[in-house]
Amino acid sequence: HIFVAFENKFFGLNLDEFEDYEQAAKTLLTALFIREKYSRLAYHCFPRTTAKFLRSANNEKWKICPVPSEGPYSMEDLPQNLNYSLRMKDGIIYVYDNEDALKQDQPRSLPYPDLETFAIDMSHVLAMIADGPTKTYCHRRLNFLMSKFHLHEMLNEMAELKELKSVPHRDFYNVRKVDTHIHAAACMNQKHLLKFIKDTYKTEADRVVLEKGGKKFTLKQVFDNLKMDPYDLTVDSLDVHAGRQTFHRFDKFNSKYNPVGASELREIYIKSDNYINGEYFARLIKEVAHDLEESKYQHAEPRLSIYGRATEEWDNLSKWFIKQKLHSPNMRWIIQVPRIYDIFRSKKIVPNFAKILENIFLPLFQATINPQKHKETHVFLKHVTGFDSVDDESKHSDHIFTYKSPKPEEWTMEENPPYTYYLFHMYANIMVLNNLRKERGLNTFQFRPHCGEAGSITHLVSAFLTADNISHGLNLKKSPVLQYLYYLTQVPIAMSPLSNNSLFLEYSKNPLREFLQKGLCVSLSTDDPLQFHYTKEALMEEYAIAAQLWKLSTCDVCEIARNSVLQSGLSHQEKKHFLGENYLQDGPEGNDIRRTNVAQIRMAYRHETLCNELSFLVDAVKSEAVAEKAS
Amino acid sequence: HIFVAFENKFFGLNLDEFEDYEQAAKTLLTALFIREKYSRLAYHCFPRTTAKFLRSANNEKWKICPVPSEGPYSMEDLPQNLNYSLRMKDGIIYVYDNEDALKQDQPRSLPYPDLETFAIDMSHVLAMIADGPTKTYCHRRLNFLMSKFHLHEMLNEMAELKELKSVPHRDFYNVRKVDTHIHAAACMNQKHLLKFIKDTYKTEADRVVLEKGGKKFTLKQVFDNLKMDPYDLTVDSLDVHAGRQTFHRFDKFNSKYNPVGASELREIYIKSDNYINGEYFARLIKEVAHDLEESKYQHAEPRLSIYGRATEEWDNLSKWFIKQKLHSPNMRWIIQVPRIYDIFRSKKIVPNFAKILENIFLPLFQATINPQKHKETHVFLKHVTGFDSVDDESKHSDHIFTYKSPKPEEWTMEENPPYTYYLFHMYANIMVLNNLRKERGLNTFQFRPHCGEAGSITHLVSAFLTADNISHGLNLKKSPVLQYLYYLTQVPIAMSPLSNNSLFLEYSKNPLREFLQKGLCVSLSTDDPLQFHYTKEALMEEYAIAAQLWKLSTCDVCEIARNSVLQSGLSHQEKKHFLGENYLQDGPEGNDIRRTNVAQIRMAYRHETLCNELSFLVDAVKSEAVAEKAS
Repeated sequence: HIFVAFENKFFGLNLDEFEDYEQAAKTLLTALFIREKYSRLAYHCFPRTTAKFLRSANNEKWKICPVPSEGPYSMEDLPQNLNYSLRMKDGIIYVYDNEDALKQDQPRSLPYPDLETFAIDMSHVLAMIADGPTKTYCHRRLNFLMSKFHLHEMLNEMAELKELKSVPHRDFYNVRKVDTHIHAAACMNQKHLLKFIKDTYKTEADRVVLEKGGKKFTLKQVFDNLKMDPYDLTVDSLDVHAGRQTFHRFDKFNSKYNPVGASELREIYIKSDNYINGEYFARLIKEVAHDLEESKYQHAEPRLSIYGRATEEWDNLSKWFIKQKLHSPNMRWIIQVPRIYDIFRSKKIVPNFAKILENIFLPLFQATINPQKHKETHVFLKHVTGFDSVDDESKHSDHIFTYKSPKPEEWTMEENPPYTYYLFHMYANIMVLNNLRKERGLNTFQFRPHCGEAGSITHLVSAFLTADNISHGLNLKKSPVLQYLYYLTQVPIAMSPLSNNSLFLEYSKNPLREFLQKGLCVSLSTDDPLQFHYTKEALMEEYAIAAQLWKLSTCDVCEIARNSVLQSGLSHQEKKHFLGENYLQDGPEGNDIRRTNVAQIRMAYRHETLCNELSFLVDAVKSEAVAEKAS
Repeated sequence: HIFVAFENKFFGLNLDEFEDYEQAAKTLLTALFIREKYSRLAYHCFPRTTAKFLRSANNEKWKICPVPSEGPYSMEDLPQNLNYSLRMKDGIIYVYDNEDALKQDQPRSLPYPDLETFAIDMSHVLAMIADGPTKTYCHRRLNFLMSKFHLHEMLNEMAELKELKSVPHRDFYNVRKVDTHIHAAACMNQKHLLKFIKDTYKTEADRVVLEKGGKKFTLKQVFDNLKMDPYDLTVDSLDVHAGRQTFHRFDKFNSKYNPVGASELREIYIKSDNYINGEYFARLIKEVAHDLEESKYQHAEPRLSIYGRATEEWDNLSKWFIKQKLHSPNMRWIIQVPRIYDIFRSKKIVPNFAKILENIFLPLFQATINPQKHKETHVFLKHVTGFDSVDDESKHSDHIFTYKSPKPEEWTMEENPPYTYYLFHMYANIMVLNNLRKERGLNTFQFRPHCGEAGSITHLVSAFLTADNISHGLNLKKSPVLQYLYYLTQVPIAMSPLSNNSLFLEYSKNPLREFLQKGLCVSLSTDDPLQFHYTKEALMEEYAIAAQLWKLSTCDVCEIARNSVLQSGLSHQEKKHFLGENYLQDGPEGNDIRRTNVAQIRMAYRHETLCNELSFLVDAVKSEAVAEKAS
């Protein structure tokens, strides 16, 4: 309570400004209600503290959302088939009790999203972020949060350190850390991939590994055609590492996924659906998983791709996962969907955008309704914890998404739909799916798109509504209102400063430290160890560099690690084990310092600070209501 | 030869400036001759290219200095005892054929250094670095070197990369790297020390490990007295890591050598001369050596301390080294001498400064003259490759060293002698010793002091005369003349940006990248992994962070690695093996790209650039001579 003297947002304001700020508070609260609505509908998490304050404005109660824990590859005791009928309408899958209900267009009572409402909510938040008084208000609050943290640091740094020193057996090395954003195809470092290629060549040179144009090739033939002896291969000739040439060149970066610039090697080594049934890719991932298990305290959430190109993708991916036994206690799986409709459309693989959505989501609904008919997908989905939306955000789109935009079935042009269009339709389907799965007692999925790495800041508005948490978030730098909203709703942000340093933003300009200081919920992640990291322990490299460069304290890095566990798709049981029994509680009560190594002083500071910010908003609205009544 | 158009130092000068610059060139050449003299006398290395240009001004020839390779712990076939007599005079040890010669003060014909000459040489260089025209000249040349490198990069970056890609089997991961500056007492990282402490407690709790005030203590008793269970110990409570609190506080940093702030644990775990005969310390170092051997391509040059407090120090250290079998093919040993006369004097351990010099150097001369009487020291010295001078350079000294300063025997006051005083007397003794050892065909020692980490820039002048190479060199930032001299004479500089970042200079302000670009001979080193590093591979962490933050190319980091081997005390045979048969040759001919992975384009660029800079100096002097003759 050392900050009481500063806890007045009204200091130094005249009456006009005062009224402006009441209005800003009201607007902000509305945004919070909007995000809460979207989160609740999709079974996403919304911070308890923020929810409580919203209830205090409405006199309601709030309930938490625990996630059930799931087993391994067993296909016994599958839930009954329900034989519901399914139909896609406006890009969203609707569920019907049977064919009759379908014919009469009477879908089951699930919350189906409404594009018009979404468009209104979007435009509300878009208007807010451009509104002068709201901008001023948020800008001031963020500055205040920054100064307050500096003060906290000066006053309490040694006390925090003392707390940590007195915690037995727990330090930064053995707190749990989750690599919250990592692509499976780049989850090994360059040296690891190189060694793997050499090893396979040594032991399996005569194995047929590729079929191309009707011809089959052994590993030896592949390398002969490339005029290359794997023994001579080096990380230089492998050429998968991002260099100075990739900065602001996402196109060049993407080609780094081809070892030695040869798409054959990508096909053989880092694809799950190839001539060798993705065996090499699986082995590589399992080696990474093994290292994580050895480290014991490190986890990862690798992204596997579903493109929406064909309807069998899920079946293939699930079979690969189960056949190759990819489950690891230290991994949770995320499905990434690249935003490349335009490519499939121009190659005439799909007739319209709805087809892609159908290829992605229909198999999920089918496996959820009739698990016994889609055993593999059903089993695989137990290990999937979320969806990601990926691609170069800096690509500009001419189309502006409104409720008048062509429906996915009508989106037949070659142009790619804009970012928000992708996000809404992914969110909408995930939301319906989550509600359906919840009914059946099955696990639900988080929506965790890449967002704010580059491009328009409207991306961050879409994700504010639709995402459980995001990757990157760099562009929050550019909008004080959005940054403040992400703070108030504690939207987790998986940041990858080393990746940004190679692609979009120099390390020294990365806002991670600033976000952390202000109290945004940030975690550290590697994105692509294959392209960015030098050492065997990519996540530790990420933490080490951040700690060195920004002179982070032990409490700082442990707070980041705690955020990473909170944000992750680890189960409720695991989170209890890693963060403490009461991790869902607010403030210090929710923190078991013996497990997280985060000082209680820090937890109290964060909680009190968030409560203060929220209470200003709520009080402003209430006082306005009183003033209105009185007048 | 793309730079021909720029290779004219005279562009844009008027006549006055022209004369200034001729004078500056002459002055600089004199400085090069001075350093060459000191290097030759001490069997230090001086760059072949620079020497050639100096010869071209004098029509002489130059010879190289290969170092013979040595065996392990064998005490067979020791050289004969010579029974020379020894006496210290003015802090320098003189060698006499026998007692008669000593009485008549007729020392053997060895080059003994002369303080007066040294003082004149020092003042010459000191005057230079303050001379306006010379400063302007050097500043311009350095700017030119920088711009020229940028141009080189723009034109040749892709060509360099192409060269590297075509080298079979060699990449950054398997080029040899030497950690050129690391203190043995901090050569393990914090996690490693912690684990070691826990392991010893688990297996040897009842072993007597400490004697204090006449009482003996088991490991268990030690921890009981500290009220601490090693099982609960964490890196936080260990508290050896440098944090924000150590910046510009070398005093606080030094206390980080005490685990848990307890000097008992330092005594038990990281001392070579204690109740358990330094067994734990040796085991820790051997674990680090084992990791280096596993890595295969990494080497280190750890510093062990000789204080000069007592005459038995060498004997104890040598016996420890041999008994504990500390030799590793991946390690070479450096002796560090802390500059703490004042502490020993105030505790009345020594009567004057000469006593310290005698304790340090007399045993070395004795072991060199009579190896069979001092077997252990003789054998240990085969593994020692150099001397370091260490302490906080930012401590100010009131005394200014001149030839009128008290001689070491007269230095009885409590005040510590200044930096230059230490350096001169260490250099002087090493020089005589090296000449004596050369006569006997024994290995010689490099003088490699810490220099320019902080404090006065005069330190860098002293080292310019006396050092084979230095550690840190940050303050070269502050003097263009010295920086240019260090460039021209290619004095190797072992830099530790992560250490600096915790102690003296923020990472982003570290001049390493700038020095590298200009062509100074810089290497990367860790200094103290215990205090600064987070990962298991401290040297790789150092390289990774530099490469990430400064966007170094593969060629850049491989050039740094090559410099580290050149600078190191590895043998001539080893350097041939790691860098190529002809590594002593100039330019591309001296580089075996298949071993170093440094592009020949880069080697040619460096060589041509250095030759150009040197030829300007030589031509200026020659043209002046012609002009003088003509007038």
